[in-house]
Amino acid sequence: MAGSTTGTAFRVTTAGESHGPGNVVIVDGVPPGLALAVDDLLPDLARRRPGQSTLVTQRKEPDHPEIMSGVFEGRTTGTPIAVVVPSVDARSRDYSKIKDTYRPGHADFTFDAKYGFRDYRGGGRSSARETVARVVAGAIARKLLAERWGVQILGYVVQVGDVVARVTDPTTVTREAIESQPVRCPDPSAATRMIELIERVRSERDSIGGVAEIVAMDVPAGWGEPVFDKLKADLGKALFSLPAVVGVEYGNGFEVATMRGSENNDLLVAEEHGESTQVRSRTNRHGGMLGGISSGMPIVMRCAVKPTSSIARDQETVDRAGRSTTISTRGRHDPCLLPRFAPMGEAMMAIVLADHALRQVTNRLLIDTPGAS
Amino acid sequence: MAGSTTGTAFRVTTAGESHGPGNVVIVDGVPPGLALAVDDLLPDLARRRPGQSTLVTQRKEPDHPEIMSGVFEGRTTGTPIAVVVPSVDARSRDYSKIKDTYRPGHADFTFDAKYGFRDYRGGGRSSARETVARVVAGAIARKLLAERWGVQILGYVVQVGDVVARVTDPTTVTREAIESQPVRCPDPSAATRMIELIERVRSERDSIGGVAEIVAMDVPAGWGEPVFDKLKADLGKALFSLPAVVGVEYGNGFEVATMRGSENNDLLVAEEHGESTQVRSRTNRHGGMLGGISSGMPIVMRCAVKPTSSIARDQETVDRAGRSTTISTRGRHDPCLLPRFAPMGEAMMAIVLADHALRQVTNRLLIDTPGAS
Amino acid sequence: MAGSTTGTAFRVTTAGESHGPGNVVIVDGVPPGLALAVDDLLPDLARRRPGQSTLVTQRKEPDHPEIMSGVFEGRTTGTPIAVVVPSVDARSRDYSKIKDTYRPGHADFTFDAKYGFRDYRGGGRSSARETVARVVAGAIARKLLAERWGVQILGYVVQVGDVVARVTDPTTVTREAIESQPVRCPDPSAATRMIELIERVRSERDSIGGVAEIVAMDVPAGWGEPVFDKLKADLGKALFSLPAVVGVEYGNGFEVATMRGSENNDLLVAEEHGESTQVRSRTNRHGGMLGGISSGMPIVMRCAVKPTSSIARDQETVDRAGRSTTISTRGRHDPCLLPRFAPMGEAMMAIVLADHALRQVTNRLLIDTPGAS
Amino acid sequence: MAGSTTGTAFRVTTAGESHGPGNVVIVDGVPPGLALAVDDLLPDLARRRPGQSTLVTQRKEPDHPEIMSGVFEGRTTGTPIAVVVPSVDARSRDYSKIKDTYRPGHADFTFDAKYGFRDYRGGGRSSARETVARVVAGAIARKLLAERWGVQILGYVVQVGDVVARVTDPTTVTREAIESQPVRCPDPSAATRMIELIERVRSERDSIGGVAEIVAMDVPAGWGEPVFDKLKADLGKALFSLPAVVGVEYGNGFEVATMRGSENNDLLVAEEHGESTQVRSRTNRHGGMLGGISSGMPIVMRCAVKPTSSIARDQETVDRAGRSTTISTRGRHDPCLLPRFAPMGEAMMAIVLADHALRQVTNRLLIDTPGAS
Repeated sequence: MAGSTTGTAFRVTTAGESHGPGNVVIVDGVPPGLALAVDDLLPDLARRRPGQSTLVTQRKEPDHPEIMSGVFEGRTTGTPIAVVVPSVDARSRDYSKIKDTYRPGHADFTFDAKYGFRDYRGGGRSSARETVARVVAGAIARKLLAERWGVQILGYVVQVGDVVARVTDPTTVTREAIESQPVRCPDPSAATRMIELIERVRSERDSIGGVAEIVAMDVPAGWGEPVFDKLKADLGKALFSLPAVVGVEYGNGFEVATMRGSENNDLLVAEEHGESTQVRSRTNRHGGMLGGISSGMPIVMRCAVKPTSSIARDQETVDRAGRSTTISTRGRHDPCLLPRFAPMGEAMMAIVLADHALRQVTNRLLIDTPGAS
Repeated sequence: MAGSTTGTAFRVTTAGESHGPGNVVIVDGVPPGLALAVDDLLPDLARRRPGQSTLVTQRKEPDHPEIMSGVFEGRTTGTPIAVVVPSVDARSRDYSKIKDTYRPGHADFTFDAKYGFRDYRGGGRSSARETVARVVAGAIARKLLAERWGVQILGYVVQVGDVVARVTDPTTVTREAIESQPVRCPDPSAATRMIELIERVRSERDSIGGVAEIVAMDVPAGWGEPVFDKLKADLGKALFSLPAVVGVEYGNGFEVATMRGSENNDLLVAEEHGESTQVRSRTNRHGGMLGGISSGMPIVMRCAVKPTSSIARDQETVDRAGRSTTISTRGRHDPCLLPRFAPMGEAMMAIVLADHALRQVTNRLLIDTPGAS
Repeated sequence: MAGSTTGTAFRVTTAGESHGPGNVVIVDGVPPGLALAVDDLLPDLARRRPGQSTLVTQRKEPDHPEIMSGVFEGRTTGTPIAVVVPSVDARSRDYSKIKDTYRPGHADFTFDAKYGFRDYRGGGRSSARETVARVVAGAIARKLLAERWGVQILGYVVQVGDVVARVTDPTTVTREAIESQPVRCPDPSAATRMIELIERVRSERDSIGGVAEIVAMDVPAGWGEPVFDKLKADLGKALFSLPAVVGVEYGNGFEVATMRGSENNDLLVAEEHGESTQVRSRTNRHGGMLGGISSGMPIVMRCAVKPTSSIARDQETVDRAGRSTTISTRGRHDPCLLPRFAPMGEAMMAIVLADHALRQVTNRLLIDTPGAS
Repeated sequence: MAGSTTGTAFRVTTAGESHGPGNVVIVDGVPPGLALAVDDLLPDLARRRPGQSTLVTQRKEPDHPEIMSGVFEGRTTGTPIAVVVPSVDARSRDYSKIKDTYRPGHADFTFDAKYGFRDYRGGGRSSARETVARVVAGAIARKLLAERWGVQILGYVVQVGDVVARVTDPTTVTREAIESQPVRCPDPSAATRMIELIERVRSERDSIGGVAEIVAMDVPAGWGEPVFDKLKADLGKALFSLPAVVGVEYGNGFEVATMRGSENNDLLVAEEHGESTQVRSRTNRHGGMLGGISSGMPIVMRCAVKPTSSIARDQETVDRAGRSTTISTRGRHDPCLLPRFAPMGEAMMAIVLADHALRQVTNRLLIDTPGAS
């Protein structure tokens, strides 16, 4: 049943497959008056794009979006914004042999189990191509967040295989430091070793996993809802909805298992800003969210991304008839998903934050809200 | 804005605070004809209940639910099921001193930032008391899943502090093995050491974190949706929506960071069952979900649960006026949340699986679906 | 599938049947800070209550609601408000004979067709008893609308049988004029004749239909959405969702069929209010909504309400086994639904307007909105 | 806030304005396996299209849709179906003068009040052009309903001005009888007089209203939900969401005001079909719905459609600055909306019925449902 819409106030609906004529996104709920043009969408699309470096798949897609609605004379009108991203380089011939054989680690078998059949060209709806629509929606969300609330979102790679970056303070990472490295790791030394590892893995016809960190700065305190729609819950869902994500954590994350309350609690202090006082925590072990609501500290999340399932090695599998066989996928695949994952993770964080930013507005109607903006 | 409803086809809405007259849940979408009585709700409530052992908070709540609607002559009618769980032991006097002081690690400050003020009695809506409504909904979901699809869900503790349980195969864990230990760890040796650790931590007026594993067995292949509502995404959201969860993973989880595709992929084989053939994987590194859709293998998820924020030690903080102060919370608190977390995690997994079970039904209308049931 | 929740920003979920222990409503999305107490709910409940006059059913229900959550120290907290209204006078014996026989005009047969069986006591979920939950939600919505935006909502009877009230200007109708008549018609002369007609119909063991008008005054221009969620559409749905409503119209309504554009269009004029100018229409043939969005003029809607299906005459019907039989329902029924319909219609209009009031808030974020408040 | 998505299980999202590059619709929730091609969309688009006869606006739009996703090898895949309908004949010059002047009867003023500004070209999002997306979604819904359940939906004109068609039995109306008349009235004599009236009204630079009837045959008993999402409520919302609809009724509609229960109730009888027995009513005064749930009898609804607001006469109005002025809209407008309304009404009924058809499926899981199919 219908599952391609997300969000309550900032609502994103997508459609499209890997090898169809294009991908489509409708973003409903953007307030009127936001300056928006195709140029605002291009940078994020470029960072997601295949073929941007030798580290990633070489499918050639210009990803040139067309805004179909919701923008008039350069500003959003408050009505839904539809964007179409045509597909160009959809070489179906690469995929014909997977029509009847289930690739290990892919959704081939589960799609057949769900729907009875599937669009087998390049993974169909389960392809990472689908994220192009999310990146468009994320770019719109990011612009709204930046212009209205000054929120900035950065995603970068902190681990590939056993190479771990040294990022002691997420708030010091810059877009420039990230984008100066094709692997999108802001630690240059680690980035060099990550590239070496990815190249080696590819030469061995294998793939490798890693961890990305997604950070939002200057999020006001007070975003999120207390129970099911906790900010951590909606962010967790959004990041888990990306292909290949098998783990999500924020703040101290899984390290809390061995920690005591006295070590994990962040102590609160008051910071004076001219005449006003702002509550802050000395440390940010809580990753910017308490009780599912933003605290005003940076939101820091990490995603574990599995190694690409498509590898150019023979792997044991079965076909649709249940016969044993082997498959080796020699198409154009990323040996490591992390470099292109960063913009996808940013997009999903932006979509969720824009939704909760708009949801929080109604709480302002009857009462002054200290500490929030 | 409204955020206390979850689910699409199996829809759960909750209301209630820690120290109000009671908690309320409405479950809408349960198919007609399911045998249901108050007795079906009591076991899970008993496992969530405070005061069940010396390891947990000693607040005394009988948690006796009343079914207000949706059941007639012992069967569900198809109309919404409302259940009220009155609160009895709500000692407001324990909490009066936290009215104006923000407890570190709690939602006190973020609620004030969100709403401008809060029900300060025992955490109000951010209290773990709120999960009593979820456990009721989970018990209904679990019954539906068991009777219609044979799905079984188990939650247990696999780590407290540095004590790690040895659970090599989740499918061999039994409800009896879990419940025979007050700490809900099915490895008796680890359970003993966990209890010792929790008692020591409490005597030191501190708290300790841990990890719980939640497993669903016999889930048919084909549940979940391809994009935003991936099964892993909805399960991730549901588990992150529980208090104190700061990390969620499934299958190999964060270990994939150092793994290669050739190590992480599960190879597929065909198993003959009489005349039919079922596709299975040799291993279950994928934790039962591929492309966001269930594969028929056990769904295996893990949650990192932080140490209780309430500790009986002076901690630096600020009050509502922004003045520095200290606070020590001496109330009745769990020194470790893990023992009572297991039934909450099971409830959330059951709610999500029931939702996706019902959502999958419409895909059966026009086509035969091989491999799914 | 789940259908007992309505609204996007002001979200109402109900549960409960005619003869269960009580009805339950959860209202999620009320902004924090609204003064609210049980006393705010009682007047509307009293107007909906059975037994209030000799014109209506004599079932005796005190309808004493309990607020379970979402209110603290007399103000809403921003978290969901649950209200339970226990049922007291549920005489199941009156209904035992309809267990297997379908009453003409009732939902007995359609419920069986839908669910396979039904709670046959007093109509179960299809009973008008269910509207008690809506009236509670409506009272909360009405208070929010009045306090924040000054919106006033009135419902009254304009026709019973062939007795038509003379109400030339809805804005001159007062609550006092309505409530001074047990039939809730503000035209005293018509009211007297309506009462006579209802009494005569009852003495003839029959029932009679009519029309109610529901009016909202001082609704700001700009509420509503352009396409599916037009204000007229959501109001239309809300009014059609009430039992016995078989027609809804606004403004000129069905009279437009014979009108020309030059007769039906309302001409626009500018009214000066001190330094500001407000756009108004000379006439209100459009009933306060243009393009599905409020115009600032009074919203005027009318509902056709069918005669009570339960009549104390033998009527031809069939039983569950498909055998021909007759039925006469001698229980305690309203011979005319209109007097008690007015508060139900007001409640539904209030719920929809509160929802759209909150939905409109996000449009204020980036741009000044002339003409709206 | 977001309002361009409708439906729960069959979910339709639209975007697009009158004079943008095109209109977009995403239909999510269509079960896999439905045969679908562009040719299935063309007939309904042709019936909605401007320029089809001299009775309607002469804007020339080929309305050639492109299916972007969700269909593979001629069958739906279960994933969202996106369709783009490019606009071609968008003569912006016709509309430049209405940039700052509010047209009486249009949404110009209310859009400005809502959003602060608007896309003034041809009504923007409030234009009837937007319904092209609904007709696409309706064509998909109609195909699903016909192939799986045998449901047939017909819309036709029963009144224009004072010309009233004679349609005694909706079940005898045929598509051929409707489409043989450019005014879409199946009564040839009335159709002739309607055409004369429309031509006269146009020559007088005026417009005229009317009534359309929308009928669904062979809808199984049991579709709909008991409370907020009653079938009549969702159908009412859907029809009211169409431009110019100011009244909706079903069955006896507003005539019930003067009717007695003994006149309005439909008596039930059992019809034998071979070995099975089906409950039917002798008459269909209830228009196919009881308690908000389909009864198995034809669903019969009527919509009051106002006269076109755009007329080529000077009308008093104000501009954005609040100055008095006049406006006469000489563009290409329908003098009567009814002929093109019929396919729009059919589309909305199909969308709602498809949604409730899919929603009903989950009620079949645990229990046999007599009387429904």
